[in-house]
Amino acid sequence: MRDVAVIGIGMTQFGELWGKSIKDIFVEAATKAIKNAGVDHIDSMYVGSMSSGLFVGQEHLGAILADYLGQTPIPSTRVESACASGGAAFRAAYFEVASGASDIVLAGGVEKMTDGADVTEALATAADQEYEVYQGVTFPGLYAMIANAHMNQYGTTREQLAAISVKNHRNGANNPNAQFRSPVTLEQVMNSTLVADPLRLLDCSPVSDGGAAVILCSMDVAKKFTDTIIKVKGTAQASDTIALHSRKSLTTLNSVVTAAHKAYKMAGVTPKDINFAEVHDCFTIAEAVVYEDLGFCEKGCGGPAAEEGRTAIDGKTPLNTSGGLKSKGHPVGATGIAQIIELYEQLTGQAGKRQVKNAHIGLAQNMGGSGASCVINILEAK
Amino acid sequence: MRDVAVIGIGMTQFGELWGKSIKDIFVEAATKAIKNAGVDHIDSMYVGSMSSGLFVGQEHLGAILADYLGQTPIPSTRVESACASGGAAFRAAYFEVASGASDIVLAGGVEKMTDGADVTEALATAADQEYEVYQGVTFPGLYAMIANAHMNQYGTTREQLAAISVKNHRNGANNPNAQFRSPVTLEQVMNSTLVADPLRLLDCSPVSDGGAAVILCSMDVAKKFTDTIIKVKGTAQASDTIALHSRKSLTTLNSVVTAAHKAYKMAGVTPKDINFAEVHDCFTIAEAVVYEDLGFCEKGCGGPAAEEGRTAIDGKTPLNTSGGLKSKGHPVGATGIAQIIELYEQLTGQAGKRQVKNAHIGLAQNMGGSGASCVINILEAK
Repeated sequence: MRDVAVIGIGMTQFGELWGKSIKDIFVEAATKAIKNAGVDHIDSMYVGSMSSGLFVGQEHLGAILADYLGQTPIPSTRVESACASGGAAFRAAYFEVASGASDIVLAGGVEKMTDGADVTEALATAADQEYEVYQGVTFPGLYAMIANAHMNQYGTTREQLAAISVKNHRNGANNPNAQFRSPVTLEQVMNSTLVADPLRLLDCSPVSDGGAAVILCSMDVAKKFTDTIIKVKGTAQASDTIALHSRKSLTTLNSVVTAAHKAYKMAGVTPKDINFAEVHDCFTIAEAVVYEDLGFCEKGCGGPAAEEGRTAIDGKTPLNTSGGLKSKGHPVGATGIAQIIELYEQLTGQAGKRQVKNAHIGLAQNMGGSGASCVINILEAK
Repeated sequence: MRDVAVIGIGMTQFGELWGKSIKDIFVEAATKAIKNAGVDHIDSMYVGSMSSGLFVGQEHLGAILADYLGQTPIPSTRVESACASGGAAFRAAYFEVASGASDIVLAGGVEKMTDGADVTEALATAADQEYEVYQGVTFPGLYAMIANAHMNQYGTTREQLAAISVKNHRNGANNPNAQFRSPVTLEQVMNSTLVADPLRLLDCSPVSDGGAAVILCSMDVAKKFTDTIIKVKGTAQASDTIALHSRKSLTTLNSVVTAAHKAYKMAGVTPKDINFAEVHDCFTIAEAVVYEDLGFCEKGCGGPAAEEGRTAIDGKTPLNTSGGLKSKGHPVGATGIAQIIELYEQLTGQAGKRQVKNAHIGLAQNMGGSGASCVINILEAK
């Protein structure tokens, strides 16, 4: 396999972008990425989107976005793995470059969720329709079950979950592209509206519109365009049973454990070598569980780690310096690519007030459903 | 890039499979393919599906199908390019194997269209929602415009289009997996219900349920499992403007011309070297136009070629020996993979009454929308 680099990034503001269509959003992000990379063309493109059919009545997103981006006749394909669609699009682009078939490939993600669709119903199509959704459970309920099990098994507290939200809002306040740039207090989280016990409104990532894109390039070709080159050091993906009730444990996400193991092996690193990570905090409990399953600590320490500041920007393993899904926003198909963008900004020293010191190796963990899909990418500053 | 082979195939009956869910259908096809290949595991899988969200309310198809196939925790991703989703899934699997990241990858496709969804509305999401569908046009209307333009420009006749339907039904009658196994006469096509002038019911591919899967493998690993090895000699994909009104010509599909040029170049062949082809006859006119745009003849000869028998099984360039989308059925996400299956059966001499003599090199052309996406794969008997 050829070495692959990320050489350019672009994203829109995340938020309620009522004045922009899904096409406007994607084109803005992709144009920024192409300009940022300084490339004179792209060979191919992939678009991660979870449910453009249900959200805005538009499938065939690869073709329509290549068209509106002015890139026909290049190949353009949509990739879907629910909320891990962006991560999966990144991997598809990676394989195309790594194989030698193409030199420069755009990997993007987009979702337009605020156009009037029934968002909870659309998102629920990432769970098992027959055995979960038809019985009345949607994602807040599924993650609430994980949270309750984690509390019972490891003594995780309500305050610890709230600490994750507080940290991510603090980080997001310094991210100009974040949907929510207001810090929140522990009390505000603890007293926010109950959504699915024990999860409250400020434990939940929001409904968002947004787009993100990065340019992948073979390492040797990358040098022609830019000196700002970030290497893709490891990439892995894994699946798990789609229904929560089919799993042996509610408190370990097997797809995360499996993908992490493979990504670390490919990258030749251990969790100790990871300087910071973007993880899939669709709900606060998810960040706690994923932190453990990535091997940053023993099982059960996800809550205490946040409470004690170990996952803060100046902590041992900074998590979600971008603000995470919680504060930055979660336009589901774009999230996996936005994580890569935060890695790129950190690894190139462009993260401003969010900058992690000595950021050499970063990890992005993107997840679909209640963990039935997980994509992990490890990037390294050259 | 490593050489890649197809080493196993499996598909379901195409038709109205009311007793089977989308999961049942995919699992049946994938299980057959794994068994047919004789492999002891698969490293990864891709699923082409156009609109499982709108058709059956289930996204996250990669994960749920890996789960029901008993293949967790392998990576599993859905790929979507409207009716070219199967072809795009095949290419994604191809890149993963060609890169060296995986040795054995399943590429499948599935669609469950008869479960009560508004099929015409769901299919129309492959066109431009804002500028085509909201104005009232759906795919029969779009292809009718292509047909009218082709008739005006090249003198293509109603009878010539009907001859395509007659040929494909004749072929499909000998395909045990085809939805329609009844030959039709020229008169029956000419007198069938008018759908969108000049296209009649028997010019249109049907609404279908079905699944198909193939196993891709690196050439060196393939030899461990089977002697029945078909090489992927060329693969290419291209895009075009999604809206028909944005094109310079209605009678040439640029995505087909571009993808064909690239695929021939990669394979080191010319149209003359292609012994037979499966092409995307969603409507009879599509087969005529694609036949021309693949370079099998000059523009305008697509109609006469069918009428004069040049595209029959014993003709110079047999087209759609499987029965094509018209007779075999068109479960949209599965179609691109089913085309590869017909190539495999022909190239390995397993096509029975449909067998093309001296079938050494075959081409599959899969298309999305009114040609905004096109995937072409060229396979060769080793």
